[in-house]
Amino acid sequence: MAGKFTIGLVQMRCTPHPKDNLSRAVERIEEAARGGAQVVCLQELFGSQYFCQREDAALFDLAEPIPGPTTNVLAETARRHQVVVIASVFERRAAGVYHNSAAVLDADGSLVSVYRKTHIPDDPLYYEKYYFTPGDLGYPACDTRVGRLGALVCWDQWYPEAARLVALRGAQVLFYPTAIGWRPSEKERHGREQYDAWRTIQRSHAIANGMYVAAVNRVGHEGPPKGGLEFFGGSFLCDPFGVVIAEASHDREEIVYGVCDPARIEEVRRNWPFLRDRRIDTYGALTARLID
Amino acid sequence: MAGKFTIGLVQMRCTPHPKDNLSRAVERIEEAARGGAQVVCLQELFGSQYFCQREDAALFDLAEPIPGPTTNVLAETARRHQVVVIASVFERRAAGVYHNSAAVLDADGSLVSVYRKTHIPDDPLYYEKYYFTPGDLGYPACDTRVGRLGALVCWDQWYPEAARLVALRGAQVLFYPTAIGWRPSEKERHGREQYDAWRTIQRSHAIANGMYVAAVNRVGHEGPPKGGLEFFGGSFLCDPFGVVIAEASHDREEIVYGVCDPARIEEVRRNWPFLRDRRIDTYGALTARLID
Repeated sequence: MAGKFTIGLVQMRCTPHPKDNLSRAVERIEEAARGGAQVVCLQELFGSQYFCQREDAALFDLAEPIPGPTTNVLAETARRHQVVVIASVFERRAAGVYHNSAAVLDADGSLVSVYRKTHIPDDPLYYEKYYFTPGDLGYPACDTRVGRLGALVCWDQWYPEAARLVALRGAQVLFYPTAIGWRPSEKERHGREQYDAWRTIQRSHAIANGMYVAAVNRVGHEGPPKGGLEFFGGSFLCDPFGVVIAEASHDREEIVYGVCDPARIEEVRRNWPFLRDRRIDTYGALTARLID
Repeated sequence: MAGKFTIGLVQMRCTPHPKDNLSRAVERIEEAARGGAQVVCLQELFGSQYFCQREDAALFDLAEPIPGPTTNVLAETARRHQVVVIASVFERRAAGVYHNSAAVLDADGSLVSVYRKTHIPDDPLYYEKYYFTPGDLGYPACDTRVGRLGALVCWDQWYPEAARLVALRGAQVLFYPTAIGWRPSEKERHGREQYDAWRTIQRSHAIANGMYVAAVNRVGHEGPPKGGLEFFGGSFLCDPFGVVIAEASHDREEIVYGVCDPARIEEVRRNWPFLRDRRIDTYGALTARLID
């Protein structure tokens, strides 16, 4: 087991200009590396504003292959600063086959893993089923220079099954690049409980699995002034018992830092041995839609 | 779908005298019924002090069949007060085959469901693997006069798989009779995070599944004055989005009440349609011990 390492979570606003978003992301990775981060995770689809607020076939132009222009730039940044980078990319796999993907770039710039979002939402202002076909790469974890990491994407964060499968593959940290916000009309009434549910479900994955969990969300309002989405930030890192050890604001661009200590994973799993007592002989029906 | 109903959670101390514990439990059910409860849940193994703090073959004498003396008394109480009762019983099934079980007694006194604890802990002062063989009745949900209910037991509460399977069977409320406490030597340093992890993981089951979750824990110190366990109470009911709507203290006997509203389940599941998007084609490996 490798030693401790420092994680940096980059919480950004996005502009309508992909080149601007990418260049600012590179700057933030550089800043995080200078700040001591050995792994940097960017938010979901950081290269653009959250285009899924509407269905428009022209927006498929935003997609690109992996490896491709964005991961090439980030791989060079990773190599130059010797930092692992987790990057969310709108992936064009073929004409008509697009994914919402997360690439893991090791500290030498090599592309070590791609994950394609499996759980795809479709709700007003989150029309993702139109853009993204579900992934077919399972729920991977991969070895990097610092340790074994997993990355899922946003809506996946509500599914204990997905987190468990990453944990069973040995991930020490599970990252969730995210784009979740409040509808301005709902914020006053429901905003607090929405944010709290989002934070709670992800902390629960840390607890259930004895691993670190990091969520990286965007900030800022996008869309029409009286509508659209106010992305609620609140990026955080929690330890293997769900204790939040670093947390960002709801409205500012920030980099938050926290340390992953494999000894803490060992300690928590010895004292709360949930993985020991899983009753795998009783879980077969989890592949059922309902039991009715 | 049935209408709203009121839940009462009975948080008690236990004495070394089973008859005393049973008679006080009956009084609390009566009090809860007078207070408006239509479903009352008792804590785990309310009939005795938490005997699993040591391994002693003589303590198997505490066990009894289901139906048996305890469920007969509670069935009569349920019938007399027209209230559903969820009761945790140390079940003797045969010589050498004992379970930690939860019985659901309908408001007419009929025994409608038995669940046998599946995930069995074994940790210092929680030597349950010595006493309880794992259940073989799956993860049931059952129809009662008020609605469809599920009951798991204590250590099960740390397993998202078990909660999901009860939800897939249509439970509106999932109850967890519990006996969890602080070791006095650890309380100051770890007590707060232990309680918070316990509360968080159960709230997460409500969120992931869009159902109400109720945890019912005991209070009081049991065992040698300088050792033993201080059961931390904190019994609570949360709604299908994880919002805590009723919560008990850490140190007092109490009955806490809350309302289960099927319309709230409907509302939450329409707006956060997690069950719609489960990717059941990708969950097969959940029956693996590890993926290595």
